[in-house]
Amino acid sequence: MLPRRLLVAGLLRSTSTSSPAYPRPENVRERFLSGSCYSDSTRHRGAGSTAKMLDPFALVKDEVSEVSNRLRSMVAAEVPELTSAAGYFFRAGAEGKTTCPTVLLLMASAIRTDTPVSTIGSMNELRAKPMCIAEITEMIHVASLIHDDVLDLADTRRGMDSLNSAVGNKLAILAGDFLLFRAFSAAGSLDNAEVVSLLATALNNLVTGELMQMNVTPAQRCSMDYYLQKTYYKTAALISNSCKAVAVLAGQTADVAALAYQYGRHLGIAYQLIDDILDFTGTSASLGKGSLSDIHQGIVTAPVLFAMEEFPELRESVERGFHDPSDVATALEYLAKSEGIERTRLLATEHAKLAARAIDALPEVGDRVALISRQALKDLAQKLIRRTK
Amino acid sequence: MLPRRLLVAGLLRSTSTSSPAYPRPENVRERFLSGSCYSDSTRHRGAGSTAKMLDPFALVKDEVSEVSNRLRSMVAAEVPELTSAAGYFFRAGAEGKTTCPTVLLLMASAIRTDTPVSTIGSMNELRAKPMCIAEITEMIHVASLIHDDVLDLADTRRGMDSLNSAVGNKLAILAGDFLLFRAFSAAGSLDNAEVVSLLATALNNLVTGELMQMNVTPAQRCSMDYYLQKTYYKTAALISNSCKAVAVLAGQTADVAALAYQYGRHLGIAYQLIDDILDFTGTSASLGKGSLSDIHQGIVTAPVLFAMEEFPELRESVERGFHDPSDVATALEYLAKSEGIERTRLLATEHAKLAARAIDALPEVGDRVALISRQALKDLAQKLIRRTK
Repeated sequence: MLPRRLLVAGLLRSTSTSSPAYPRPENVRERFLSGSCYSDSTRHRGAGSTAKMLDPFALVKDEVSEVSNRLRSMVAAEVPELTSAAGYFFRAGAEGKTTCPTVLLLMASAIRTDTPVSTIGSMNELRAKPMCIAEITEMIHVASLIHDDVLDLADTRRGMDSLNSAVGNKLAILAGDFLLFRAFSAAGSLDNAEVVSLLATALNNLVTGELMQMNVTPAQRCSMDYYLQKTYYKTAALISNSCKAVAVLAGQTADVAALAYQYGRHLGIAYQLIDDILDFTGTSASLGKGSLSDIHQGIVTAPVLFAMEEFPELRESVERGFHDPSDVATALEYLAKSEGIERTRLLATEHAKLAARAIDALPEVGDRVALISRQALKDLAQKLIRRTK
Repeated sequence: MLPRRLLVAGLLRSTSTSSPAYPRPENVRERFLSGSCYSDSTRHRGAGSTAKMLDPFALVKDEVSEVSNRLRSMVAAEVPELTSAAGYFFRAGAEGKTTCPTVLLLMASAIRTDTPVSTIGSMNELRAKPMCIAEITEMIHVASLIHDDVLDLADTRRGMDSLNSAVGNKLAILAGDFLLFRAFSAAGSLDNAEVVSLLATALNNLVTGELMQMNVTPAQRCSMDYYLQKTYYKTAALISNSCKAVAVLAGQTADVAALAYQYGRHLGIAYQLIDDILDFTGTSASLGKGSLSDIHQGIVTAPVLFAMEEFPELRESVERGFHDPSDVATALEYLAKSEGIERTRLLATEHAKLAARAIDALPEVGDRVALISRQALKDLAQKLIRRTK
């Protein structure tokens, strides 16, 4: 049983790891510089000061929507069934939360060095590469979701039928392979070996993470280290490596690329920790109101592992993998009287802070768009840990 | 119903994508230049002349074996289960016929321009790139076999348990994804966008070919064009694009790269046509002695399509897809009295000739290793269409 402080310290160890015409960025810049990037809610920033929180999604909305449009045409295949299967999660309304492309496009603005007004005309080109990384990242992400759903025999995804339930396992496997082909094809066209390697690493991590979740010994099931490593692979590796790819493609220094990576890494882990809480609480704050899908699938997450630190007698149930409903009931009972949920939230907050710290460590910049983007990335981390769905 | 001449003409239409230390090539060169590269069998080359036929496999045996060794270490993953699943078909004795790496390494020698003796010391470097392409090609090839076996619920492959029967569907899907990651990772490290794109195209074609076989209308089932397109995608696209990649990486002209591609394309189609015959005849020449696995799976191949040209009354059975054993019996009956097998063999011979023609069209060269490699590639085409297993 690790003391929490040590545990958080352990987390901080780093595990490092096609471009056609693009839209006019003028209105993006306009949105950055006008008031339209603030969300309605206001909050206190530190003691006493009141400031509007940025709406990170609104800042790059047009570009993200362009990424979604382009994805729909990028997955066109020779065989119509393949086009519609590969494009299933890129249909309007099926794209999910678009967190990844939002982060990547904000990161591209955040790390840009001062751009004299006279070069704004060439911003199209500056944005083409991060938009391409956003597209590739979405394709790898969706390919892995599709294959995971086949593995897990999942019925639903993003509130609709999973692709395997809609079109069958065979077509779903092929659609995943096809998306990987499109992703690496696009990556190849960027003509940067380091970027291909970063994205390939991300795919490798996704596969490894899925396997770590699938094949797990009783001891691994009880290990916070194992859980965090798996979480990094499954949820944070893609965004962290993609953030780094954006920096590499922008010709940034290794230091800046490492900070971009760290932001993505901590954001991804924070995101997953909150997801783990929501699986127990749902949109309310009450325990047991969530779908409890993790625990019913035998997947042990941070809240239960923290509860087990407080109540070692829970260990046996955890080791057995929750095949028996009485073990699930035991875990929920102990979780309710433990600080498992609160400690998970604290850990997520810690990661959100570390994500913000990576942004604050970026070299100083005078450019207003860069400054706003940095604030938006920090606000996004806050937003993700406060979400209730 | 197309006349065969037109059909052959149709075939000629073209349908056009990490390197540590490599072994000493001296003994390879030695084998090339000594007598040890001739197979035991002799045959007539053209009217009257007798010549020993080269053993193409013997010429590059050491390098192919080095490729196999390197593949075993390249698939090492963090999770041991993944390492052994991904390496399943790379174990000693499980590598299959190694036709692909043999072709690619011979192609690398065949297109080399005269190399002064003084530069032989740097041959290591010259061979590193084609060996890397051979490794990548094998990984894409095996990944596609693994996923295909999951799709087809296949029990066996290369005379042993398929990976899905050995370790289950889940691990097999992940192992395939992992191999694709390793392949594209290695491709990325070659730092050549055209090569990544050629290999990605090959993967796309494999997926498309599998899908064309899976989802087929009655009309498509009866179409020789559809069959040949699918055959190109499933069997010839990987080797043709890899042959081209070898030429591109060697800095060859677009013309040489196109000839390398054409050789691979025709070789691949010829290979598959003979495979289709062997499915009916097995190692003997008698009809019905093969495994008949294609027709029992409802897969219509060239022999039946040719038989249908002679006996249009067979069409209805073909359209129905051979779910009914009586349709299989009807097809075998018509096939026996038709020239289906002979015409398929003729078509394969035609493709083998076109493969040889691509080699003959390469720019003249004085280098003996190049000349021997060219002859070996032509002999390989002959060997493949004469094989009985």
